[in-house]
Amino acid sequence: MAEIFDRVAIIGIGLIGSSIARALKEHGVCREIVVGDVSETHGKRALELGLCAAAHTDVVKAVAGADVVILCTPMSTYEAIADKIAPALKQGAIVTDVGSVKQAATKSVKSRLPAHARWLAGHPVAGTENSGPDAGFAALFKGRWCILTPEADSDPDAQAKVHAMWTAFGSNVVTMDAEHHDLVLAITSHLPHLIAYTIVGTATDLETTLQSEVIKFSAGGFRDFTRIAASDPIMWRDVFLNNREAVLEMLQRFSEDLSHLQRAIRWGEGEKLEALFTRTRSIRRSIIEAKQA
Amino acid sequence: MAEIFDRVAIIGIGLIGSSIARALKEHGVCREIVVGDVSETHGKRALELGLCAAAHTDVVKAVAGADVVILCTPMSTYEAIADKIAPALKQGAIVTDVGSVKQAATKSVKSRLPAHARWLAGHPVAGTENSGPDAGFAALFKGRWCILTPEADSDPDAQAKVHAMWTAFGSNVVTMDAEHHDLVLAITSHLPHLIAYTIVGTATDLETTLQSEVIKFSAGGFRDFTRIAASDPIMWRDVFLNNREAVLEMLQRFSEDLSHLQRAIRWGEGEKLEALFTRTRSIRRSIIEAKQA
Repeated sequence: MAEIFDRVAIIGIGLIGSSIARALKEHGVCREIVVGDVSETHGKRALELGLCAAAHTDVVKAVAGADVVILCTPMSTYEAIADKIAPALKQGAIVTDVGSVKQAATKSVKSRLPAHARWLAGHPVAGTENSGPDAGFAALFKGRWCILTPEADSDPDAQAKVHAMWTAFGSNVVTMDAEHHDLVLAITSHLPHLIAYTIVGTATDLETTLQSEVIKFSAGGFRDFTRIAASDPIMWRDVFLNNREAVLEMLQRFSEDLSHLQRAIRWGEGEKLEALFTRTRSIRRSIIEAKQA
Repeated sequence: MAEIFDRVAIIGIGLIGSSIARALKEHGVCREIVVGDVSETHGKRALELGLCAAAHTDVVKAVAGADVVILCTPMSTYEAIADKIAPALKQGAIVTDVGSVKQAATKSVKSRLPAHARWLAGHPVAGTENSGPDAGFAALFKGRWCILTPEADSDPDAQAKVHAMWTAFGSNVVTMDAEHHDLVLAITSHLPHLIAYTIVGTATDLETTLQSEVIKFSAGGFRDFTRIAASDPIMWRDVFLNNREAVLEMLQRFSEDLSHLQRAIRWGEGEKLEALFTRTRSIRRSIIEAKQA
């Protein structure tokens, strides 16, 4: 395909950043990739893997001359990075991100950028439990959704280009309000992660003998939770701190529903359990039909 | 291999029962399989699939002349089945099961059987979210654990034969106390299922527009829960009703831990979140090393 960008700066070359680098190359989306990462080890590894033309620990050097800057770092770093890159951005540079909370992303970055820069918040709904530049792969975004949350004053050309990039990666791009995004993701992603982290934590607090058996007999359901609970700790800490209201709201609903089932178990109310378990089964079918299984 | 049994009666030809039938045939464990299932459709299907020599809706006919009877039905059916088959069992017949709660299984069945019959409770820790005779496959038990919970008076010959059967299927067979089994499975299997059912239920109670988006964006973590929450409703209702004390104990611990995280999110205590999320990651590695991933 025709190149969409000349130079792309990827800030943070972890699972998502390195998958973007690979996808940019595979689909010929830009001429050159420059990486910025505070970890010198990650930068060196990115060069070894042929993911970029240059890698810098100094984010200012990484964004120099870039047409688009993609933030792929934990959200707690956004404010400091925005402050640093603001004076170094090329005239009219697009700044976008891949963070899991979109109201907080815009709040952290937008007002810190110069007037000439064009901010557009984005979120590819894809990932694995692995981290680092070696964990990425070009097909990570293929067939997955990418959500963009433009505002009324977002630049149409920047939107079109970022949209085209994700489409080139094989993603289905949708646009929605940032607040709505944060609510939808609270239930589809943030709460599931919080629950998985919790139950794996509960299991690790058991007596030592029980603990080794938890690992041994994990095939009964537990292991699916351990995969989710192996996701990047810093990234997820930041997600919960940045989407507090929506996560607490969904958590409250979940806790009420769990208490309802707890009571049904205690009082032997089998019909309540059966009714719910029958209802949840049909959701799985919908997900298979929606080709997201 | 040499046949362990002459005739095997499988009561309930669903996911587990039909997988056993396939594994018995594949590994030449017996000469003949007879199926008992209250569903005439399931029985007919089992015959079509070549899983058995005969299929009966009458469990009394199914167990006649069988050396071993394997109960593969939801646990709420155990008492009635035990009452029915008791007078029809062949002299010295072994009766075993695959249910998820072992204290309750023994309590329901053992005292109902004649003195000549030999009861041994068993539990293959394996399964999928699919149900019915078409869902089974011979390799389901391969590399998985099978737990037997004999009592002081369990017949050694019956133990050896049932052990040999599961070993022939490729399972790693272990023996433990029924009470201990029920506690271990409460955390590795029953609680994960209860939580998955709950969160999928919480999501389906959202407003209709949100609900379709939950399906659309399920790749963010939610879909793993929907797979677990698609498991057989009757079987799981019976698990919770039969392992009430252990499930309520583990649920209480989980709820306390979840409240702890909820509070950390509300008060912005990132270090507490990060500490847990780092700890849970290592459990995944243990499961991969234990080859149960």
